[in-house]
Amino acid sequence: MTPAAPDPARVRLAAFDSDGTLTERGIGWDDRGVGFRRFDVRDGLALQWAMRAGLPVVVISGKDSPALAARLAELGVPGFQGVEDKPACLEAFAREKGLTLADCAFVGDDLPDVPVMRRVGYPMAVADAHPLVHAVAAWRATCEGGRGAAREAIEHLLAATGRWDAILARYDASDLAAGAVARFESP
Amino acid sequence: MTPAAPDPARVRLAAFDSDGTLTERGIGWDDRGVGFRRFDVRDGLALQWAMRAGLPVVVISGKDSPALAARLAELGVPGFQGVEDKPACLEAFAREKGLTLADCAFVGDDLPDVPVMRRVGYPMAVADAHPLVHAVAAWRATCEGGRGAAREAIEHLLAATGRWDAILARYDASDLAAGAVARFESP
Amino acid sequence: MTPAAPDPARVRLAAFDSDGTLTERGIGWDDRGVGFRRFDVRDGLALQWAMRAGLPVVVISGKDSPALAARLAELGVPGFQGVEDKPACLEAFAREKGLTLADCAFVGDDLPDVPVMRRVGYPMAVADAHPLVHAVAAWRATCEGGRGAAREAIEHLLAATGRWDAILARYDASDLAAGAVARFESP
Amino acid sequence: MTPAAPDPARVRLAAFDSDGTLTERGIGWDDRGVGFRRFDVRDGLALQWAMRAGLPVVVISGKDSPALAARLAELGVPGFQGVEDKPACLEAFAREKGLTLADCAFVGDDLPDVPVMRRVGYPMAVADAHPLVHAVAAWRATCEGGRGAAREAIEHLLAATGRWDAILARYDASDLAAGAVARFESP
Repeated sequence: MTPAAPDPARVRLAAFDSDGTLTERGIGWDDRGVGFRRFDVRDGLALQWAMRAGLPVVVISGKDSPALAARLAELGVPGFQGVEDKPACLEAFAREKGLTLADCAFVGDDLPDVPVMRRVGYPMAVADAHPLVHAVAAWRATCEGGRGAAREAIEHLLAATGRWDAILARYDASDLAAGAVARFESP
Repeated sequence: MTPAAPDPARVRLAAFDSDGTLTERGIGWDDRGVGFRRFDVRDGLALQWAMRAGLPVVVISGKDSPALAARLAELGVPGFQGVEDKPACLEAFAREKGLTLADCAFVGDDLPDVPVMRRVGYPMAVADAHPLVHAVAAWRATCEGGRGAAREAIEHLLAATGRWDAILARYDASDLAAGAVARFESP
Repeated sequence: MTPAAPDPARVRLAAFDSDGTLTERGIGWDDRGVGFRRFDVRDGLALQWAMRAGLPVVVISGKDSPALAARLAELGVPGFQGVEDKPACLEAFAREKGLTLADCAFVGDDLPDVPVMRRVGYPMAVADAHPLVHAVAAWRATCEGGRGAAREAIEHLLAATGRWDAILARYDASDLAAGAVARFESP
Repeated sequence: MTPAAPDPARVRLAAFDSDGTLTERGIGWDDRGVGFRRFDVRDGLALQWAMRAGLPVVVISGKDSPALAARLAELGVPGFQGVEDKPACLEAFAREKGLTLADCAFVGDDLPDVPVMRRVGYPMAVADAHPLVHAVAAWRATCEGGRGAAREAIEHLLAATGRWDAILARYDASDLAAGAVARFESP
């Protein structure tokens, strides 16, 4: 059986790496040993849009960061941290929803994301991803990680799965929809 | 009745979104769950200029951030947070001053700003606003949000309403005024 | 009497604004109301070079920031905060050293720096200074404020006053001096 | 005896400056006097790769930062702070491993790194290094300090010493190796 060509219209679950994908790669530490992360307001809004529009999302991070936990709690987004095996983690999360990796998108930026990106149906990369990550991605953002890449990825998926118009309607922007879809189409 | 063409000279109240407009979109969290925001020193100075020059300002944010509250307190700028309905919030604030939305400018960056931007007299967008926000803006900054966009917007409004010369006089810069006005005129 | 043309070789005291000059304009606040500033490691090194090489330095800020105080203490650099009248502050500081404003350089970025920049002998601006600040500056950095502008300014002054070779000697770099001087000469 | 030409294949120990090399030059201070540093997630991953692959690493900083100590502890990377004499520090660290400075790479960004860079076998500079640092470097990163320069340097050394394929194999990326090596070869 030949695997299906990557198709954003088939995505039913969107997964995200954190450091370098939801952040601009910064690992902050202060003199007291308190860690810090910087996220993007537009990414967070889009994660909430997706959940409410029926496209579940999840964050899967190889590291452990209480700062990320605070961000996820703020947004009400599910997440897993300290994950050694990202494909297994995502597969288990998807299975609970009756989905497989073929139904998933994964947005990543670095080599630890490659194994899961090679197994999901729709692998996506931030603009400043490692070259080898771009090599396995079906889609690449024009925005860098932590600077709107996740937002751009979600708009792309919402448009491809027919959910974008409802978002625009909420913001009194339905008449502007054509331009937005155009911008986020794959080249 | 045809609505008036957008005219910065008619602006009598300047309103601002916060995340992405007064900040560079960063949502900071540390490991203890303490939030963080980065503002721009030049924006703050301009907000104070406007108030003292008789152009009232207000910040209207959809989110809740004690860090923003600290910034507003530092500047003595009024603000509303956790606002679901930005048009209604701004309309009520304006009404207390005997003004309507037609008398207001609103500077925004993302879709939640579209409804209020479509109703104010002079909608303004930061340079890195979402494309749909640019589509409804009468003016766009050359600076990004949190990197001087609010400052640029205020200089534009102060110049258009005849208040810029007084600012320059305070800084021993009156003879330099011509160049500044030129720079901030609409293209 | 005609004022002397601006000449970096005559500078005997180098003064610096802080926000926007030693920082990248960021005003940080956390949810607890604790302020934050980001400085540049290379600027700090250069401030210490200047002092040890016999070119005194001082920081004059219009705002009040305990974070700046921490930075100044770390470097052992004198500074004044909450200064309403920068020319008077610098003039008094210079007088204690037997100097006048004509002997001073001042590195600034925004309108509150214009009055003092118009009175010192050698006014200098960061790359991203307000256009009106560039209009009164005799020298402009290629680096932005908080991103090496102060360092570049100090190297320029140390080279112009014959102190740069001693710095290079300390770092086993004397044979590389020609290139460095070339880079920091005024265009 | 003529010193050997710089050759990354001979590197057996990789040393790194911290401020400006592992960080983007930012020195953060808050109002309580707590310092802050921002590191890059990809640099940290690469430091761990190198250690596990048998290429020891060490960080040598002229300043003292508890925030750096937190970062080093997180990564399990050895480091020295407050170092006045970087060549002596690195030489002693290398000697314990039976190595000399000729076996070492050093990645730096500013003048205090020049003395050690002139003595190691393979001196490397971040993209935004001081011009005089570039003048003594055998290799320059395309990434800036704190923005992936250390990662790029380590990939270059791992590739040159035959360790890169094992990294790729771990991430299910062996078939992508050719492209990566090409990217990190010296021009």
